[in-house]
Amino acid sequence: MTMSIKYGTIWSRYSRHRVYIPRLERTMFEKIKKALTIQCSTVRELLAETLGTFILMVFGLSSVAQVVLGKGNTGQYLSINMAFGIGVTLGIHASGGVSGGHLNAAITIMEYILGNLSWKKLIAYLTGQFLGSFTAAATVFGLYYDALYDYTKGNFTVTGPIATAPIFATYPAPNVSLLGAFFTEFTATVMLVLGVQVIHDEKNNAALKGTQPLVTGILVLGIGLGMGMNTGYAINPSRDLPPRIFTAIAGWGTEVFTAGRNWWWVPVTAPVLGSLAGVLMYKLFIDFHNQADEEIENKKEQRGVEISKL
Amino acid sequence: MTMSIKYGTIWSRYSRHRVYIPRLERTMFEKIKKALTIQCSTVRELLAETLGTFILMVFGLSSVAQVVLGKGNTGQYLSINMAFGIGVTLGIHASGGVSGGHLNAAITIMEYILGNLSWKKLIAYLTGQFLGSFTAAATVFGLYYDALYDYTKGNFTVTGPIATAPIFATYPAPNVSLLGAFFTEFTATVMLVLGVQVIHDEKNNAALKGTQPLVTGILVLGIGLGMGMNTGYAINPSRDLPPRIFTAIAGWGTEVFTAGRNWWWVPVTAPVLGSLAGVLMYKLFIDFHNQADEEIENKKEQRGVEISKL
Amino acid sequence: MTMSIKYGTIWSRYSRHRVYIPRLERTMFEKIKKALTIQCSTVRELLAETLGTFILMVFGLSSVAQVVLGKGNTGQYLSINMAFGIGVTLGIHASGGVSGGHLNAAITIMEYILGNLSWKKLIAYLTGQFLGSFTAAATVFGLYYDALYDYTKGNFTVTGPIATAPIFATYPAPNVSLLGAFFTEFTATVMLVLGVQVIHDEKNNAALKGTQPLVTGILVLGIGLGMGMNTGYAINPSRDLPPRIFTAIAGWGTEVFTAGRNWWWVPVTAPVLGSLAGVLMYKLFIDFHNQADEEIENKKEQRGVEISKL
Amino acid sequence: MTMSIKYGTIWSRYSRHRVYIPRLERTMFEKIKKALTIQCSTVRELLAETLGTFILMVFGLSSVAQVVLGKGNTGQYLSINMAFGIGVTLGIHASGGVSGGHLNAAITIMEYILGNLSWKKLIAYLTGQFLGSFTAAATVFGLYYDALYDYTKGNFTVTGPIATAPIFATYPAPNVSLLGAFFTEFTATVMLVLGVQVIHDEKNNAALKGTQPLVTGILVLGIGLGMGMNTGYAINPSRDLPPRIFTAIAGWGTEVFTAGRNWWWVPVTAPVLGSLAGVLMYKLFIDFHNQADEEIENKKEQRGVEISKL
Repeated sequence: MTMSIKYGTIWSRYSRHRVYIPRLERTMFEKIKKALTIQCSTVRELLAETLGTFILMVFGLSSVAQVVLGKGNTGQYLSINMAFGIGVTLGIHASGGVSGGHLNAAITIMEYILGNLSWKKLIAYLTGQFLGSFTAAATVFGLYYDALYDYTKGNFTVTGPIATAPIFATYPAPNVSLLGAFFTEFTATVMLVLGVQVIHDEKNNAALKGTQPLVTGILVLGIGLGMGMNTGYAINPSRDLPPRIFTAIAGWGTEVFTAGRNWWWVPVTAPVLGSLAGVLMYKLFIDFHNQADEEIENKKEQRGVEISKL
Repeated sequence: MTMSIKYGTIWSRYSRHRVYIPRLERTMFEKIKKALTIQCSTVRELLAETLGTFILMVFGLSSVAQVVLGKGNTGQYLSINMAFGIGVTLGIHASGGVSGGHLNAAITIMEYILGNLSWKKLIAYLTGQFLGSFTAAATVFGLYYDALYDYTKGNFTVTGPIATAPIFATYPAPNVSLLGAFFTEFTATVMLVLGVQVIHDEKNNAALKGTQPLVTGILVLGIGLGMGMNTGYAINPSRDLPPRIFTAIAGWGTEVFTAGRNWWWVPVTAPVLGSLAGVLMYKLFIDFHNQADEEIENKKEQRGVEISKL
Repeated sequence: MTMSIKYGTIWSRYSRHRVYIPRLERTMFEKIKKALTIQCSTVRELLAETLGTFILMVFGLSSVAQVVLGKGNTGQYLSINMAFGIGVTLGIHASGGVSGGHLNAAITIMEYILGNLSWKKLIAYLTGQFLGSFTAAATVFGLYYDALYDYTKGNFTVTGPIATAPIFATYPAPNVSLLGAFFTEFTATVMLVLGVQVIHDEKNNAALKGTQPLVTGILVLGIGLGMGMNTGYAINPSRDLPPRIFTAIAGWGTEVFTAGRNWWWVPVTAPVLGSLAGVLMYKLFIDFHNQADEEIENKKEQRGVEISKL
Repeated sequence: MTMSIKYGTIWSRYSRHRVYIPRLERTMFEKIKKALTIQCSTVRELLAETLGTFILMVFGLSSVAQVVLGKGNTGQYLSINMAFGIGVTLGIHASGGVSGGHLNAAITIMEYILGNLSWKKLIAYLTGQFLGSFTAAATVFGLYYDALYDYTKGNFTVTGPIATAPIFATYPAPNVSLLGAFFTEFTATVMLVLGVQVIHDEKNNAALKGTQPLVTGILVLGIGLGMGMNTGYAINPSRDLPPRIFTAIAGWGTEVFTAGRNWWWVPVTAPVLGSLAGVLMYKLFIDFHNQADEEIENKKEQRGVEISKL
């Protein structure tokens, strides 16, 4: 008991004071809880991806809004880089224990292509990510409705000097070709997936367990610091498409799809290809050779065990 | 011995040199210590919340003062976001082992409503938080008294171009409606409480023990990066009300309550509702389903034990 | 199983769903994998240094490009400091388990001089670092080709108001003498190597395992914050020379070698001397004395074991 | 073997390749090493404090130089805050295992007053800190000699528009009274010592071992963000006095002592008082009561042991 208090935090205290809930109330509470408890793992993964993506996107999008609408007084480009990193960290903490914390359709589709997800799970993950991201866009729209109105005088535009659509979805910089922009999204996703693998590969030099979400957030910060200028580093269809659809509905119109030479499909496709390339690169440079090591060792150990059985 | 030195820090060295205190002095010291030692857990929790909230608020408020009074030469909006995060980290380190480190009346009241705190503890926690926050405001007033006087020529105003009341308490931005501001405080607290839960939930994908205060600080940094513009992200009655009362007394007058359409009550009430919503959200999306898992497992284990007893 | 899911991350989920790959495909995949698996440790170290240096350099160089070409809208000097730090963190995660994560010819050459690397390994490490760094420069050139062209109108210059060669390699500030610049590179590398040693020395007060790459990144951030102005803190021949050669080929011409009074050789030589000085300093101030301690203890333990055998 | 490689870092590889040193060379090396090895713990602590303070101060002072001399292009006030934090982190990693990592005369004197250091150790620690800090000032002077000359045209001034003495030692802001400045140094040191205690107190809610130096660096960052404007947050006689003496010698003259109403003695005395107040505060609010707990438990355990012996 004392040990648990020593290292205790807000939430470890729950258990200590439970006695104060009257018995009847408690029984009712337990019944409601039971009714709301879901045992199907696919639904739970859908919910986890929804919550994780929601958290990621509320932190991320709200920081863009604060920088754009605050006119430089309440943030800068760096704030956006940091906020998306923090969103990723918290999103992985939120969903990692249930769904593995994809929060990114490119990673989910990659896992499906690699055979690590059934099509049922694929749909559940993508649905969850879509719902979380769409709801986050709506939440940030609500948060900054007054400021948006004040900034635009009610004229929600996709391009131009007071463009506000870029708060929600990404648009390419005017000085970048479509090929260059596609290559940027592809490469930034390669770096993302390389980073995620090196942070988590315990056969190699992984980050300490329990600090991996933090380091993954720092990885995303790094991508924004260096690979954000051309395209706004979507690197994730679930970060880009649902808020874009939201803006189409919420008053910006279909220009959100046609702007930037029909830009919308690039952050949907390039990250998927980038994810696959990133996984392949890591396998070829590091992982295949380490896996072989491990298998040899396992065999040795098995033989050892067999010998010791004699 | 050698082990403890290896990983030693400043404070682990205390024990090594105790011999240098003369025996008599030591006995006196022990007596004084004994006289000052408090065994009542409620009083100790009050003291822990006082110290923790004091630390949080000195770091936070002083950074606002430095940005406002330094006219941009000694900090920027980001400094404030970082300083409140660091204050939270250190405040939780200070109080986490004794009181669980609430440092926030919204969380304390939420715990009371959920039945995890008796009304006696509720009062102790709120009193501690109030004292710590009020004293911190007075300390920062002392720290920056000269600079405040120099900046304002002795004219302490709540609004206007050289307003200094916002150093201590939050005020809504002029372009935000009361509803929008309330929604902002509500939502920012939802994100806070979601974040605290995902960082600490060891049935899910928690941050590593001993790094949780750091990640909680980063969470608060993230809230400031994206949800700070409208209302100054109080997200905590204990952060807002005691310094506001301090300013009313210290020379800014009762306008601190009437400004911003009687703003003062919003950061007192909205965070409490936000806390409850945040807890509910996490339970529905993740925790209920994980708890069920754990119970099933525990039952299995018990059965296993019983079987093995046969 | 449940345990592994609880603390699970994206990649720990691989194992769960393997069943979805059809058996035939799997066999083919295994065959290809086997064909691509390298068992020679020297080649694997070369590959690890290649990937690690590639990751380091893509993060680092792209952030310089974003600051230079973004004209201050998408980053600042601090972004570059942060990005190189993050690159180092991820590069060490990528290669640390195979090659030890040098990513720096100065450290590799120092290790060779200290007798910790054979000449075969020396060549493998340097080759890997060269390839990774050169490829990263090409990748960043590709990423920012459009923006480079837009910024320079196709006129790639090494010096002058729209100089773009400093995106790839370092050049000394105009107000610094060659001696001062050499001393800066030397000293900054001393601080780097001191830092790396104190972070990793487990006989002293090392950073926690699994967080060492992160703290090493923070070390590199610190070097950029204070020792970057004179020379751009190459502190690493592998960071500087391959991208310089790349720029010579890619359109900037041989001026990249003659600029800054033939600057190119300083970041190649000064860091090697700095590394050796840094190692010597740490040995003299701390490590020799701690090593002696350990040996004495080991002897005691051995004696203890011998006695207990009697 | 494989395990150590898996989690290996640069330095863990030392052991693997030792074979490449010819036997003769190795014997000579061992002899030199033996001759240089110091077994006296006091001298070793002096050396550790020297190295730790040197590292802290090179990172800190060089960042001030880079901000002042770079005229805003290579850093900002935040850079200085970050660099001093990083310097503290690395300084503690460098010296923590030998001397406990004081790096601050105020903490050393406090420990002496509390009876935790003999007068012999007191002198060793202070000497080490002085040497490290003085040498760091000389190193930074060397690093930025060219830029200093370029910036000042050889006219090293303590005050005025191109004052450069503040690169090395702290000076109070013009709008602050001596009392206010003294109170600032006192309070900032109280916060430092409170922070150090809460980060390291394992009876309470300490930071994870091995991450404590990092969190201590973040604490110092936080102090700079909020308590730096009035006085430049010396909070440490060893940070302020040796560089001040260096500047007096190196060309700024005795004005470094008379400027700011003989400011020099404030950062020497106020931090000592602040340290004592910080320790007392933590004892009264938290530690006395936790210590009592621990003693009671220890007694119980002893009794338990005794009973089990029966």
